[in-house]
Amino acid sequence: MEPMAYKRCLEIKKPDGQDALANRERLLSALGDIPARVTLPVMQRLYPLLQDADYRVTVTLSPSELGWDVICIEPGDTTGRLYGLALDIGSTTLEMELLDLNSGATLANVQRENRQRAMGDNILDRIVAVKADIRNLERLRSYVVEDISAMISLCCAEAGVESGEIAVLVAAGNTTMMHFLYGCDPWQVFQSPYTPVFYDPGIVCAAELGLPLNCNVVAMPAVANYLGGDITSGLLMTDMDTREDPAMLLDIGTNGELAFGCRDYLLLGAGAAGPALEGAVSERGMRAEPGAISSISIGEDNILRYTTIGGEPPRGICGSGILDLIAQGYLAGWIAGNGTINPGASDCISYVWDELRQQNIPAIEYAPGMFLSESDIAEWIRCKAAAFTMVATLLDHCGLTPDDIGRLYLSGGFGTHYDLESAITVGLYPDLPRDRFTILGNSSLQGAKLLLTDRKNMERLRHFQEMGVYLQFGEMERFLENMIAAQFLPHTDARLYPSVHPRKKP
Amino acid sequence: MEPMAYKRCLEIKKPDGQDALANRERLLSALGDIPARVTLPVMQRLYPLLQDADYRVTVTLSPSELGWDVICIEPGDTTGRLYGLALDIGSTTLEMELLDLNSGATLANVQRENRQRAMGDNILDRIVAVKADIRNLERLRSYVVEDISAMISLCCAEAGVESGEIAVLVAAGNTTMMHFLYGCDPWQVFQSPYTPVFYDPGIVCAAELGLPLNCNVVAMPAVANYLGGDITSGLLMTDMDTREDPAMLLDIGTNGELAFGCRDYLLLGAGAAGPALEGAVSERGMRAEPGAISSISIGEDNILRYTTIGGEPPRGICGSGILDLIAQGYLAGWIAGNGTINPGASDCISYVWDELRQQNIPAIEYAPGMFLSESDIAEWIRCKAAAFTMVATLLDHCGLTPDDIGRLYLSGGFGTHYDLESAITVGLYPDLPRDRFTILGNSSLQGAKLLLTDRKNMERLRHFQEMGVYLQFGEMERFLENMIAAQFLPHTDARLYPSVHPRKKP
Repeated sequence: MEPMAYKRCLEIKKPDGQDALANRERLLSALGDIPARVTLPVMQRLYPLLQDADYRVTVTLSPSELGWDVICIEPGDTTGRLYGLALDIGSTTLEMELLDLNSGATLANVQRENRQRAMGDNILDRIVAVKADIRNLERLRSYVVEDISAMISLCCAEAGVESGEIAVLVAAGNTTMMHFLYGCDPWQVFQSPYTPVFYDPGIVCAAELGLPLNCNVVAMPAVANYLGGDITSGLLMTDMDTREDPAMLLDIGTNGELAFGCRDYLLLGAGAAGPALEGAVSERGMRAEPGAISSISIGEDNILRYTTIGGEPPRGICGSGILDLIAQGYLAGWIAGNGTINPGASDCISYVWDELRQQNIPAIEYAPGMFLSESDIAEWIRCKAAAFTMVATLLDHCGLTPDDIGRLYLSGGFGTHYDLESAITVGLYPDLPRDRFTILGNSSLQGAKLLLTDRKNMERLRHFQEMGVYLQFGEMERFLENMIAAQFLPHTDARLYPSVHPRKKP
Repeated sequence: MEPMAYKRCLEIKKPDGQDALANRERLLSALGDIPARVTLPVMQRLYPLLQDADYRVTVTLSPSELGWDVICIEPGDTTGRLYGLALDIGSTTLEMELLDLNSGATLANVQRENRQRAMGDNILDRIVAVKADIRNLERLRSYVVEDISAMISLCCAEAGVESGEIAVLVAAGNTTMMHFLYGCDPWQVFQSPYTPVFYDPGIVCAAELGLPLNCNVVAMPAVANYLGGDITSGLLMTDMDTREDPAMLLDIGTNGELAFGCRDYLLLGAGAAGPALEGAVSERGMRAEPGAISSISIGEDNILRYTTIGGEPPRGICGSGILDLIAQGYLAGWIAGNGTINPGASDCISYVWDELRQQNIPAIEYAPGMFLSESDIAEWIRCKAAAFTMVATLLDHCGLTPDDIGRLYLSGGFGTHYDLESAITVGLYPDLPRDRFTILGNSSLQGAKLLLTDRKNMERLRHFQEMGVYLQFGEMERFLENMIAAQFLPHTDARLYPSVHPRKKP
């Protein structure tokens, strides 16, 4: 393990009559060939610290843009205490871990709701708010800086570590969230010519970002415009830079991102999937918070059962609940492959007024007073088709079939908290042998931890950045064809889903 | 000319459908192999600046510890405006010049009394003040930062330049003065083990030093403990790194510093000369300010005449006046080679009470009520002997004679404002053909300007630092012998001063 920051205990040559080299030069000489800069606060401490410590000191080296910064000097050997922070900046939730960089152990974990939600749940709302008034950029920046600062305090308290002992922070997030942290306008992340301000903001001093740390901040770089540091983090968790047969990394949310490759190539793509997949399709759609229906089953007895987060009375339904409802409804024969509802399939099915069509349409009342209508399902299927179409089009582009995917890595909240069988049933993921799936969890944070604990991953990042070829799905052959074919449960070509068998046909 | 900072006008590749590289990476790519860091404020300006400027911009590169910092970005081609500051931090006076780094022309010059004098005229007093109370270090630091900040404003106003346009500042001063600027305790500059905190503080961001600039600050490094950046500056102004025969650089003040060498070697030495040489010997001694007697002659008519600075009525005498008085007194037969005064040589000679000897002793009344006594002269001769002994001992060490000095560079206020003939007459400088002398003036500032305007001088600095061998005069052979031999006007060995001929013997 070669962590992103390190300490070195130095036996500095003592001065004598023949050698009156200055303290800074003496320290640099003890560091040998390391391209290091002695920061001003450390230089100011050299006298009398060096003498008092009898020239045996420990220095902390934080990575910098062009080498290393000596950010701390302590008397004696303190190499046993070396700490770093990993941070995931999600648009909804921030998560931070404090790690012992000697052992790799996690000493503290803190989560916090992103205060930026006050300016829009959706990141697009926040981007538009900045466009409307550039002062909102500073507001969004200060929100996230306040959040991170508070998390640093909590992590340090939990781990019994002084914030001054943190040797480096590695932050990952999507391109927009990183732009807010670095005070950069993300407008062009989503606007022509689709050039964000940075893929990699470079290594910056924490104090310059306004963070109460003494060290430098490393950002997980984006691999492409729509494939931010959160996806790069995911790539670090795969073996896509070494394996012989291709693997796929899939992160589906409001947007879908995917990477496909092996040691010889890396194809990247991204596209809108739609907020429907995250629950926005239903008028009772909500985030995965206490009271949200998060899983649904329809038993052999044709009875619908649900569970809520925290076991509380249902307040609404979150994305994983809707996914289950559609999958289970399809298997139970309540919903047809084309998304229509069979009104006679269950007592739970009734009619609701559809504003758009100006008529009553069938709907499933999955909880008292909560409905998912045929229109909702249609929209949902369009979204899942958009996500699956990325996979299908990419495979077509390579002349491959789903079975050629040696491993399918699922990252992000969708991959982690949504039921895998449901997602295959509806045709969101390809129907592969289940042992080919790997759930990565919060890969943004986990990848940040990988980089934090082993800087060799920097080379892997460069490899992914250099190797990656970004595909424009919209411009690719068979894209529309694939899209239309996927607008069905699980797919118009049933041969692609051999393991999906509805118990009843509507 | 390759200045310490530079601008580059970049035609940045415009994005198109195939190329959505981020702005920062696009900029770095246009910079090619230059090891550059894009500072956070510049990154924050990239959008919309790049687009608005149609991807034609000018960046300012300020040198950093391990490469370059992109500190400014402007639309279009602004390479015509490139500015830098050179600064000499003297213990008495600060001097700053603002230069056009394209032409090398000086656009503004500002001098200012060092506010630190409030804590002691003598730098030793300031060092002791810090030892007595460490908070005085912060006071001294803030004084000099305030002085420099005020000078920046004045220079910028005079030159019609915005402070944000300054691309780099090069600062030179003796080791102690530099320690104060960087907030480092200089105690060990003068105390065992004689290891200052730094010879070279490294390149630091001006803002980190508290200076109202957007650029980085380069310090003229010391070549040895007692040979600070002011002396290094002087070395830059010589040809001692290229010439075949040896040259000497001499800076005499309260302390004397000298360097002796050629392309093959460089010997360095320093020692106390004594405040006497700067005027402190006389009870009417004063700094070279209006009202100070600054030059004296004794004509063929045996009449003493003086001039004062600013032509004002005499308030006292400064160092150059005392030097002239002793030299002219010796030539006119008023003062003997051993420093005694001939009471009958002039009506100006009378007796004054000597507290130490408890008796009346002869003294020259060089202006009404102002006396230089035999005791004053004796002390002065001891000081000049100390200074000359450094030269003599160094030459002995090399097995050379004064005539082997191919060129003698005089730097510092003494070399600039004191009369060369007088200094030779009294035996302070060796008696060389006058065309071998070169007066460097304020070499600390001039050397800083050389480095500012041509960074190739960095290599010369490294050469001087690596080549320099520091001699401990006190431990050298013949030191005491030389000291005693030099305690005479001009020297006990008159053959060393063939051009000095007293008109009368006392």
